[in-house]
Amino acid sequence: MTGLGIDVGGTTVTMVLLEPDGRVTAAREERMPVGLPAPAALKCVAATARVLAAGAGFEPRDLAGIGLAMPGTVDRERGVLRRAPNLPWRDVPVAALVAEALEAPVVVEHDVRMAALGEARLGAGRGVASFACVTVGTGIGAAVVLDGRLYRGASDAAGEIGHVPLAHHHDLCGCGRRGCLETVASGRAIADRVRRADGRLLTARAVFAAAAAGDPTCARVVDEAIAALGRGLTILVNVLNPEVIAVGGGVAEAGAALLDRLRASIRAAAWGPAAEVVRVVPAALGTRAGAIGAAVFAAERTSRC
Amino acid sequence: MTGLGIDVGGTTVTMVLLEPDGRVTAAREERMPVGLPAPAALKCVAATARVLAAGAGFEPRDLAGIGLAMPGTVDRERGVLRRAPNLPWRDVPVAALVAEALEAPVVVEHDVRMAALGEARLGAGRGVASFACVTVGTGIGAAVVLDGRLYRGASDAAGEIGHVPLAHHHDLCGCGRRGCLETVASGRAIADRVRRADGRLLTARAVFAAAAAGDPTCARVVDEAIAALGRGLTILVNVLNPEVIAVGGGVAEAGAALLDRLRASIRAAAWGPAAEVVRVVPAALGTRAGAIGAAVFAAERTSRC
Repeated sequence: MTGLGIDVGGTTVTMVLLEPDGRVTAAREERMPVGLPAPAALKCVAATARVLAAGAGFEPRDLAGIGLAMPGTVDRERGVLRRAPNLPWRDVPVAALVAEALEAPVVVEHDVRMAALGEARLGAGRGVASFACVTVGTGIGAAVVLDGRLYRGASDAAGEIGHVPLAHHHDLCGCGRRGCLETVASGRAIADRVRRADGRLLTARAVFAAAAAGDPTCARVVDEAIAALGRGLTILVNVLNPEVIAVGGGVAEAGAALLDRLRASIRAAAWGPAAEVVRVVPAALGTRAGAIGAAVFAAERTSRC
Repeated sequence: MTGLGIDVGGTTVTMVLLEPDGRVTAAREERMPVGLPAPAALKCVAATARVLAAGAGFEPRDLAGIGLAMPGTVDRERGVLRRAPNLPWRDVPVAALVAEALEAPVVVEHDVRMAALGEARLGAGRGVASFACVTVGTGIGAAVVLDGRLYRGASDAAGEIGHVPLAHHHDLCGCGRRGCLETVASGRAIADRVRRADGRLLTARAVFAAAAAGDPTCARVVDEAIAALGRGLTILVNVLNPEVIAVGGGVAEAGAALLDRLRASIRAAAWGPAAEVVRVVPAALGTRAGAIGAAVFAAERTSRC
């Protein structure tokens, strides 16, 4: 039966209708109505979802499940978004609000874990038992599917390599610590480090392009970002011994040679028996990964009950 | 039903009879007959096991299961020990040899994973969903039980923090790389580093004692070992977000203040939401952990079939 996945981001909402065989039969991307309070914004999101489902001949209540991916800390049991770095929302009962508008049950989970689940079931990790999915965009997110199951850890923080501390780096991180991987290798950090070096305001993508064209400041910033990211992936390899690590997000797409350099880092630094088996591949589902994962998550939750 | 666990080490064999409620009703520790070829040595081990079982009124075939913990790389399906750093054995069908001698089926697994499973079910990780068990002895071993299940990774290397590369360290490791955690924090490394500093031949335990008494060389070596170990545990915390990390082994026992300093390292360096929930505790089962885990492993394997 068809499932619906809704990925709410700080600027964009992405939604998909997903068939049990993994085909996306309808998809929609909208700007987030960020000016509205949370309940009104979620009503807009739900209205769009209802239209998408209706286009395929479905009432929401006839779907196999509805999953909501949220960009922040989630209380899954209560369906509440606790807080989100890029939305001014606090303790919003997102699942209940969307469920009320759609007159159908809704399950909620963190967007990074939804994306990892989507990639694990239908993308770069298809058929893989031990899988890590790393997204390098404005920030760095990671989540893991181990022995086929989403693994969250004791406080939903498993796989959070963005805050692995790096030697030789001391920039203050948003988390309050210094020298986290995010302060060197995230898109925001890459742009910041060029700005602080010579005042130029470039996007991370532009920094990668300038580095490729021989700009020495940009080349240094990119080299440091890739070395740091290689160190983060090495840690994932040593601790989790994954079969596949998928790397996605804007920064990953910006640096064409990135994956080769990350593979070389792992070969050089990771524990041999783990380094030998891991494959580092591009994420396969692009900006739809979170929405696809949300639909998968909802369907799996429903079928388990 | 009573299970039998046999932990074969480089110098010692430990075996236990384990009741379903977790009580050890009989235990035995013997020197490994290292002078014998593998089949003869395993016949000795099996003969001792038969005597232990008979003392409790059991024929081996009447036991709930027999588990064999081996100190090296294991092919679980075929029951073969591929190689072991501290035994001159290569590709030995250990499960079949012991099973033949005991006339009962035998399952085999790596000793570090058996110890982690024992601690998870009946020791420091009892009742804990996400658990890491780190043994700091001659070497550094670690294994993890995640969401209640032994997690091995794609090539049985999950949790191997002994080979996490450390900045600022460049000693050659047995694995062929430089600067692994084991080259700074294992018992062997601690002894080696003092010997290289001033020629003294001290055990790791003696180095800890001398450091506590104010010896500056030993204090420096111990400080570096604890800092490195703290870094290794921080990595475990960031990637796995465990509820409990148990620390055992000779080095852990030698340094009374060790756990407090490791906790401080984690608080200072690990990602907040993961650092806040983790408890770092001493391993609870001592030298019997591997044998107890082997009995648990055998019982769980049998009950699943």
